[in-house]
Amino acid sequence: MEPAPPAPSGRPRVAVLVADDRPPGMDGIERLADVRYVREPDLAPALKDADVLFMWDFWSEALAGAWPDGGGPGWVHIASAGVDRLLFPALVEGRTAVTNSRGIFDEPIAEYVLGLVHCFAKDLHTTLRLQAERRWRHRETERVAGARALVVGTGPIGRAIGRRLAAAGMRVGGVGRTARPGDPDLGDVLPMDGLHGALAGADYVVLAAPLTGATRGMIDAAALARMRPTGRLINVGRGPLVVEDDLVAALRAGTIAGAALDVFVDEPLPAPSPLWDLPGVIVSPHMSGDVAGWRDDLVRLFADNLDRHRHGRPLRNVVDKRLGYVRAPDPSDPSDPQRDDQRGQR
Amino acid sequence: MEPAPPAPSGRPRVAVLVADDRPPGMDGIERLADVRYVREPDLAPALKDADVLFMWDFWSEALAGAWPDGGGPGWVHIASAGVDRLLFPALVEGRTAVTNSRGIFDEPIAEYVLGLVHCFAKDLHTTLRLQAERRWRHRETERVAGARALVVGTGPIGRAIGRRLAAAGMRVGGVGRTARPGDPDLGDVLPMDGLHGALAGADYVVLAAPLTGATRGMIDAAALARMRPTGRLINVGRGPLVVEDDLVAALRAGTIAGAALDVFVDEPLPAPSPLWDLPGVIVSPHMSGDVAGWRDDLVRLFADNLDRHRHGRPLRNVVDKRLGYVRAPDPSDPSDPQRDDQRGQR
Repeated sequence: MEPAPPAPSGRPRVAVLVADDRPPGMDGIERLADVRYVREPDLAPALKDADVLFMWDFWSEALAGAWPDGGGPGWVHIASAGVDRLLFPALVEGRTAVTNSRGIFDEPIAEYVLGLVHCFAKDLHTTLRLQAERRWRHRETERVAGARALVVGTGPIGRAIGRRLAAAGMRVGGVGRTARPGDPDLGDVLPMDGLHGALAGADYVVLAAPLTGATRGMIDAAALARMRPTGRLINVGRGPLVVEDDLVAALRAGTIAGAALDVFVDEPLPAPSPLWDLPGVIVSPHMSGDVAGWRDDLVRLFADNLDRHRHGRPLRNVVDKRLGYVRAPDPSDPSDPQRDDQRGQR
Repeated sequence: MEPAPPAPSGRPRVAVLVADDRPPGMDGIERLADVRYVREPDLAPALKDADVLFMWDFWSEALAGAWPDGGGPGWVHIASAGVDRLLFPALVEGRTAVTNSRGIFDEPIAEYVLGLVHCFAKDLHTTLRLQAERRWRHRETERVAGARALVVGTGPIGRAIGRRLAAAGMRVGGVGRTARPGDPDLGDVLPMDGLHGALAGADYVVLAAPLTGATRGMIDAAALARMRPTGRLINVGRGPLVVEDDLVAALRAGTIAGAALDVFVDEPLPAPSPLWDLPGVIVSPHMSGDVAGWRDDLVRLFADNLDRHRHGRPLRNVVDKRLGYVRAPDPSDPSDPQRDDQRGQR
């Protein structure tokens, strides 16, 4: 575990990177810290004298260009689970601690995935299309119970998905960095080099992995060719986990039956993308984890970490900057603050 | 429990009422019985010398008009769970045993309902509409876990729904003919006269009751007025449980937030019905229980009952013709064949 950054003397200076909206409910934080809200053009000067950067605008890719040569704030917190857009070499190699919003999105995303599975199994997307045409056309549907799901990614989001799908009677397996037979949430977890073999047995392949050098482009033509013609791909991780051109080709060729995509290489998904209207494809605007109240939850998580920071206690959700995500908590270490956030953040 | 009809001597004569399609996999039955496939116009003469009528065309309402004056076959089996279209006074009062296909649809319908709940909570219907317009519009969604569902109907379909929704983390209550606090599948079950009070506390009201004199029109303007403005109505029972004009008015007035309807007063739903394109309404063509293989399952159930009939053993799924559905099994009676079909028919 990385050491906590040194506690600042007095009131910490917090820069908050915002785009359209400020975070809600910041009054508690403003009482304890000097808070400055900045937009991308003002980020560079703000970083020079900030102790903490709160990346409320988690979509921004401006940090690399604005980072001071001598190193920026001692701590950067981002209001998302993924840190792929955030990291750059000077940040990875420097002394700055990076924390993320792991935990907020787990259960909402798991529900979203369960909804997508039911949408496919019950052919709801066809029903809604026929409804728009006032057409009554009876069809047979599929069972959800007994269907096989392969969850790629063994972090807290993947685990919540595994639990939720298993509770619906699905047979769940996993793929992660390391093999783990008999995992309580994901059944038998295969290592990444077992991915291709596992794809062949899955009715639903669910991507919930972080975007790293090891996972980028993992679902390419070769992987898609291993899936069943009746299989569906669900991506709630990051767009570049999938080679989109290969996916379009596989959908057109009938190599797989469908895909539900909440994330894309380019977001918003450009209007000319063929993914918008390929049969069997469900396109949603990167919203799988965003339940009402999510913004408040994100601020609460940051406030808790800021409190830890002020008192020199270990931060939660410290990202392993070389791996690109928060390492799994060590259950044998009672002082590991990552232990707290495995479950029940909301 | 009603007595089994007398076993016929030799091969029973089975009339099968069909419309477009014959039932699949009838060869086993044809080896043991004299099977005659008839359409509605030939139903009356066929009934005169049939021992058994298999209503494969469960949509038909022709039986009342075709029924012989002196009483028809000793046993009528219908390939549906509901018997509302089937029953008529001479059948109810006569000695003919009526059995239904209870059990086949329980788990598929429960999954369908869970899918509809997720569709509402995750705003999937809006997502699909926006997708058709290639529009990327981020929205906040709702949690499923913790939401409150009221299941109306405590038969095996309602029970399967209750179990499935509870497994997804919802808080489940029920309404049935008789009060049953602490029911294992449905939580606290209120009697029918508690319906209006219970509606006010539900985020989702799920109708899974049989259509009888006691349930017809139960969801009328007065009932809808008790629901929450954020509440959704899901009907997988029978269309006339709901007063459709009242529902349309409630949806237009914002009295409730939405409805997912799989059944209607008139089926197919007529093209001019305003239900087709009211916002927040999902129209599906009476398909909630019809998973691939359902036709085979229906024939297997009939074959099992025909085997019981041939050997003079008690039939399964004997309908209480005055109540209009199969009474709950008596768990204290090991000879009650209804005990078999509470769970796991498929």
